[in-house]
Amino acid sequence: MTKAKFITLEGSEGSGKSTQSALIVDYLKSKGQDVIALREPGGVKISEAIRNLLLDVKNDAMGQECETLLYMAARAQVVKEIIAPALQAGKTIVCDRFLDSTFVYQGFGHGLDLKFIQSLGTFVTQGIVPDLTVLFDIEVKEGLSRTNAKKDRIELRPLEYHEKVRQGYLSLAAQNPNRIKLIRVDAPKEEIFKRVKDCIDQVMGL
Amino acid sequence: MTKAKFITLEGSEGSGKSTQSALIVDYLKSKGQDVIALREPGGVKISEAIRNLLLDVKNDAMGQECETLLYMAARAQVVKEIIAPALQAGKTIVCDRFLDSTFVYQGFGHGLDLKFIQSLGTFVTQGIVPDLTVLFDIEVKEGLSRTNAKKDRIELRPLEYHEKVRQGYLSLAAQNPNRIKLIRVDAPKEEIFKRVKDCIDQVMGL
Repeated sequence: MTKAKFITLEGSEGSGKSTQSALIVDYLKSKGQDVIALREPGGVKISEAIRNLLLDVKNDAMGQECETLLYMAARAQVVKEIIAPALQAGKTIVCDRFLDSTFVYQGFGHGLDLKFIQSLGTFVTQGIVPDLTVLFDIEVKEGLSRTNAKKDRIELRPLEYHEKVRQGYLSLAAQNPNRIKLIRVDAPKEEIFKRVKDCIDQVMGL
Repeated sequence: MTKAKFITLEGSEGSGKSTQSALIVDYLKSKGQDVIALREPGGVKISEAIRNLLLDVKNDAMGQECETLLYMAARAQVVKEIIAPALQAGKTIVCDRFLDSTFVYQGFGHGLDLKFIQSLGTFVTQGIVPDLTVLFDIEVKEGLSRTNAKKDRIELRPLEYHEKVRQGYLSLAAQNPNRIKLIRVDAPKEEIFKRVKDCIDQVMGL
C-alpha cells in the first residue's frame, strides 16, 4: 500500500488541467487508490460560494486585496473540511490549483508581496505542501483560445497579465524542481497524459 | 470647515451601536457635515455578499481561518471603494465595526495571533486608522437579550465566547485611551447619545 499523496495541478487558462485531472483520478482508481478530486477555489459548499463571488464578471470592482483574501478564505475552508482530514485518513488528493496559483495570479500577476502571500499561505494550509505539483505550460494566446467563449472575471484580463502569470509559474518551477514537474502542452491529451502518468507513478511509487 | 474624520463604533451584541450610529449621522448632518454611514461587514455590493456568507447560520462548518479572511476581504473592499476615497474627498465616515472587531472576535475570542491580525489589517485598511472609536460596553447576558430572537451565526456562540469578546474590547480600550472612548450602556439611548455627542464634538472640533 502506497502512502497517501497530495497532488496539485497548476497552469494558466486553457492548459488542460481539468481534462488531465479526470484522467489522473481514473488512473489512480484503476490502481486501487482511494482518491479525492478537488478544484480550487471550491470543493466544499462555503468555498464554492466564495468561488461564485470570485469568478462573477459583475464583480469587476473587486480589488486585489479582497480577491487575494477570498481565494485564501476558500482554501482555508477546503483544507479544514477535506484536505487535512483526508490526508490523515490515508486518501490521495488530486487538486486542480492550490497555493501556487495565488503566488502567480496575485503575486507575479498583480505585484502582491510574495512573503505576505507565504504568511497567508501558512495560515490557511495548516503547513500542508503538495508532494507533487504538475505544471501544464502553454503559450498564453493559445491557452486563452481554448477556454470557453463565455470568459470569467480572471480570463477576461489583458494578455500581459496572463503573460506575467505564465512567467510566474516558470519561475516557481525553476525554484522548486523537486516538487513541481513542468509539462509542455504541445501534443494531444493522451500523449500529455503519458508524461503526467510518469510523474504520478514516481511520487506514488506505482 | 472641520477636517473629515473617520469614526468607528464598536461593542458586543446588543450594545446599541446601530441606534447610536443613526443618531450620530443625524447630528453630524444637522451640523452641515458631509457624512457617510457604513456597517461592517458590508457597505458595498461585494462586501454585503461576503456578509451574507458570514452570518448565514447554515455555514456552521466555517473555520476560524476562513471566517477571519472573509471579514478582512469584506473590509478591504469597502476601504477601497468607499472609505479611502471618501476621506480623501473630505467626507466624514461613521462606520459600525472596523478592524477592532477582528481583534476581539477572532483574536481575543478565538485565540488567533494578534500580530497576524495586525499584518492582515495593515494590508486591507491601507493604513487608515479611525480618528475616534466609540466603544459601547454592556454586560454580555443583557446585550444578548436585546438582540433579535432570530440570532445569526456569531450571536449563537456560547456565553464564554461573548465574555472573551467583551474583555478583549476592554483590553483594547485600555491600550488605546486616546482613540477609543468607552461608554457604559447603563441609561436610556438619549442619555447615552449625550455622552457620545461629547466624544464626537471633541474629535470634530464642533
